[in-house]
Amino acid sequence: MNTPSSEPPRGAGPDFSTTRLEAFSDGVFAIAITLLVLDLKVPEPDALHGQTLADSLAHQWPAYFAYLVSFLVIGIIWINHHAMCALARRVDRRTLFANLLLLLTVSVIPYPTSLLATYLTAGNTDAHTAAAVYAATMVAMGLAFTLLFLSFTRNARALHTPISQADLTSALRRFGLGGVAYLATIALAYVSPIAMLATHALLAVYYCFDQLAPARKKLPTQH
Amino acid sequence: MNTPSSEPPRGAGPDFSTTRLEAFSDGVFAIAITLLVLDLKVPEPDALHGQTLADSLAHQWPAYFAYLVSFLVIGIIWINHHAMCALARRVDRRTLFANLLLLLTVSVIPYPTSLLATYLTAGNTDAHTAAAVYAATMVAMGLAFTLLFLSFTRNARALHTPISQADLTSALRRFGLGGVAYLATIALAYVSPIAMLATHALLAVYYCFDQLAPARKKLPTQH
Amino acid sequence: MNTPSSEPPRGAGPDFSTTRLEAFSDGVFAIAITLLVLDLKVPEPDALHGQTLADSLAHQWPAYFAYLVSFLVIGIIWINHHAMCALARRVDRRTLFANLLLLLTVSVIPYPTSLLATYLTAGNTDAHTAAAVYAATMVAMGLAFTLLFLSFTRNARALHTPISQADLTSALRRFGLGGVAYLATIALAYVSPIAMLATHALLAVYYCFDQLAPARKKLPTQH
Amino acid sequence: MNTPSSEPPRGAGPDFSTTRLEAFSDGVFAIAITLLVLDLKVPEPDALHGQTLADSLAHQWPAYFAYLVSFLVIGIIWINHHAMCALARRVDRRTLFANLLLLLTVSVIPYPTSLLATYLTAGNTDAHTAAAVYAATMVAMGLAFTLLFLSFTRNARALHTPISQADLTSALRRFGLGGVAYLATIALAYVSPIAMLATHALLAVYYCFDQLAPARKKLPTQH
Repeated sequence: MNTPSSEPPRGAGPDFSTTRLEAFSDGVFAIAITLLVLDLKVPEPDALHGQTLADSLAHQWPAYFAYLVSFLVIGIIWINHHAMCALARRVDRRTLFANLLLLLTVSVIPYPTSLLATYLTAGNTDAHTAAAVYAATMVAMGLAFTLLFLSFTRNARALHTPISQADLTSALRRFGLGGVAYLATIALAYVSPIAMLATHALLAVYYCFDQLAPARKKLPTQH
Repeated sequence: MNTPSSEPPRGAGPDFSTTRLEAFSDGVFAIAITLLVLDLKVPEPDALHGQTLADSLAHQWPAYFAYLVSFLVIGIIWINHHAMCALARRVDRRTLFANLLLLLTVSVIPYPTSLLATYLTAGNTDAHTAAAVYAATMVAMGLAFTLLFLSFTRNARALHTPISQADLTSALRRFGLGGVAYLATIALAYVSPIAMLATHALLAVYYCFDQLAPARKKLPTQH
Repeated sequence: MNTPSSEPPRGAGPDFSTTRLEAFSDGVFAIAITLLVLDLKVPEPDALHGQTLADSLAHQWPAYFAYLVSFLVIGIIWINHHAMCALARRVDRRTLFANLLLLLTVSVIPYPTSLLATYLTAGNTDAHTAAAVYAATMVAMGLAFTLLFLSFTRNARALHTPISQADLTSALRRFGLGGVAYLATIALAYVSPIAMLATHALLAVYYCFDQLAPARKKLPTQH
Repeated sequence: MNTPSSEPPRGAGPDFSTTRLEAFSDGVFAIAITLLVLDLKVPEPDALHGQTLADSLAHQWPAYFAYLVSFLVIGIIWINHHAMCALARRVDRRTLFANLLLLLTVSVIPYPTSLLATYLTAGNTDAHTAAAVYAATMVAMGLAFTLLFLSFTRNARALHTPISQADLTSALRRFGLGGVAYLATIALAYVSPIAMLATHALLAVYYCFDQLAPARKKLPTQH
């Protein structure tokens, strides 16, 4: 911070350090992940209709399942966002917008999560609709993350260490693979909403195995 | 941080660094932008009345539209707030209050957004009222941003690099232009609420083209 | 940050820098101030009963008034918390707890605000109850702030510059004066809830005139 | 920050500094602790049924009690998380996941709190169920905290100062003791939900007496 630099302004305007980009993004990630809990509804005593509370809570399993998967997904994106920000020293205005697009898809997640929790076991076409909306949100998020990655790596001079073309291609191939898998879950939503949700849990675990590794392993240290 | 400075306290009291001003503001921006999602309501299964979920969701388009525009507006203000804070080294108490006024107008945005989402397609005078409240909130926000800009630039000694009178006048002319456009959307609200909302989407894009550029381009580097 | 220090651990355990204390507190302040907006309820179209939306919104003025005063109060506390944290280099565990107590009283504010918004114009004993709960919350907050101030200044070695006994006494006299005024608003709540709320708006403005000034004016610079 | 280090990447991938881990965690802690207030419901004027507001509020004591205990619990975990993060210079990917697991148990707390507030005085088996869910959440959180502690201390090279085996054993014995006490509160939930809640208030106070002290007292300074 405050280290004066002789680097001249470039392109569409002066650059920003990644510090405040990360602070704002961390805020949005932290709030979106914590707002998920508002989708877990306490059964009203008057609405138990002779059921025990234990039965009523057990009946809510789709809400817990959707909560867990969405929590995992947002948590993994945060970790990968963290790793990606560590690649760059400075970001331009275009990257701020790509980041805003990613935050849009992240901060909306509590809505499809709540939708899916409500309709997962409806056992009709509405369950398919809710599951497809959930899967489509994840596709949008994956796309936004890829755009942001391209925006981060596009300007080699802003990186701590330039990424080789081979590493970039390898990272993009992995994003592509993940993207195809995400798209396939929209189709899966029309077959089995529960399988769709389980697949997203698995995809989150896949994404956690550091698909940015080849790009990062040559860096001395992330701050 | 912690760099001792021999600068004496000035005016209405000692100054503050911009670090914590930014941290608190980032928090409010991040929360306001993420709370918008609470305005997207999941249709209750009992309230579908034979409609499919897909139809019911399609029917909610005003809520998605209002969500998107408000998300864009808050995101752009954040980017411009970020750029403005980069101008100053230290802020005085008056600037803290001007900033608080801006945060008031930002953090209230989920309310007119929800109001507009509910009444946008009511097709009567209530739609006009909701749209006018939305537009008036944006006018208040634009005014608060201008006040904050004046407060930031008023004290040349607190700036990284003094802003020339010409650059200041040019920036204020742009603010004025934006302000007139904002005011005009209140009138537009009484003609077409949907056109009013679309105009705010366009105004956000206008504001994103860096109206602070002339003031900033002479700075060595923003932190 | 990370500046190694030879200072030995003291008292009830090792000390903490104020950095993370401020980060967590800023988070709570930012969230509490932004959650206030959830108390502004959009009138349901079905519940207008022939009233226009404009009439219905005008009818909600107690909610706007309570929102504004609570926003102002939290904003002022944040500014003064900011000024107080700038006094110290390090805090001990006792100060962390005093800070937690202050955050408890701050983060609960949306509840009495909502209570007051609902009952302010009930025109009976319930309006008095709601107003007294609001005023009592402010008393608790003022008390917690005083405790935190004592905790911050108790350990002269942790301060950037020691505070003279005279300055400390003067600051405490001002806190005491404010405390008496706060207490008096509980009585006022039983006379006129609206006057009680207006008084808190005025008290916030009083507190904004830097009652920490004597203690701070000898510091070289706040970080 | 940004201090270049010659330390080579290790294990499952490059390491991260604790800075952003703390920022994200502080965000989640701050939001979870502040969202608790949403569980305090303002009695609807129409639902008072001739009761005064004062009576109705007094009747809500289980909600205030649960709010206070959960606030205290999250606050203490934050303080101990803060102390634990001060032990390490860098964290690996495994620690990020252990931290995510802790944040999952923290961010879900508003749900069992609301459940307990609703059923604490139901005086039947549902009160036991709600209390057991609350106690089980605390067990999960204690477990996640222990896992995170192990993950932090596992890699001696990432610590500011290595922890001796004796200190580590002593810290783990204290965690074990706390864990047994937490488990016992699940049984207590079936005897007296109120005693279970009171016990968690006491356990929070126990945990506040710095069970990390032996591990930390040899460190020069936490940042």
